[in-house]
Amino acid sequence: MPQRKRSLYVCVNRRPDGTPKGSCAARGAVELHARIKTLLKERGLAELEVRACTSSCLDVCWVGPSIAVEPDHYVYGRVQLADAEAIVEALAAGTRVERLVLEPRDFELPRELREREKAEKPG
Amino acid sequence: MPQRKRSLYVCVNRRPDGTPKGSCAARGAVELHARIKTLLKERGLAELEVRACTSSCLDVCWVGPSIAVEPDHYVYGRVQLADAEAIVEALAAGTRVERLVLEPRDFELPRELREREKAEKPG
Repeated sequence: MPQRKRSLYVCVNRRPDGTPKGSCAARGAVELHARIKTLLKERGLAELEVRACTSSCLDVCWVGPSIAVEPDHYVYGRVQLADAEAIVEALAAGTRVERLVLEPRDFELPRELREREKAEKPG
Repeated sequence: MPQRKRSLYVCVNRRPDGTPKGSCAARGAVELHARIKTLLKERGLAELEVRACTSSCLDVCWVGPSIAVEPDHYVYGRVQLADAEAIVEALAAGTRVERLVLEPRDFELPRELREREKAEKPG
């Protein structure tokens, strides 16, 4: 099989329950990755077009579950299992699901979490 | 932190010992990822330039350990721990370590492995 035209990296990082940031796995990312993989196969995209991998933390935990789409280099955030169809259909059409694409401000740790992390840091 | 300009996805997939294809983790990919992460931090690239994630199988097990470099969309293969410095220096310089970049033929499952997989398939 040749290198696929696109790669999806679905963050499946899991943090301990109760962590302020939360984590993608705790929000259903493992099931989301499995669903996308199934849909890509059914749609005939898995062989040549798109490979869906899991990845470690993409550093946008507060807007997870998150998926990096490469080489386009945009990131989907707040992705729900019900969004899998739209994501795969957009890949088939060569478009994006704009409502899920993270904006520059989404990459910044929210102030509330920043202050909480600072307060909890020992020393 | 804004979205980094580049992402590395270091395959850390582990297959059972003795699997014909082998696996990146069995060839030292976990240590490789940790080393690259340390070097990126030391070189001052981790905050804005490059994030090194781990990933599931990149589907080039036979030439692993493998690292996808995005959004450039090339893949490093046969990467040894001693290559980590050259990889990070190339990222700093905006170049690639050409001797490690996989060629189109590297993405094809070698015939020997293909035949072995076929022979071992039940039914």
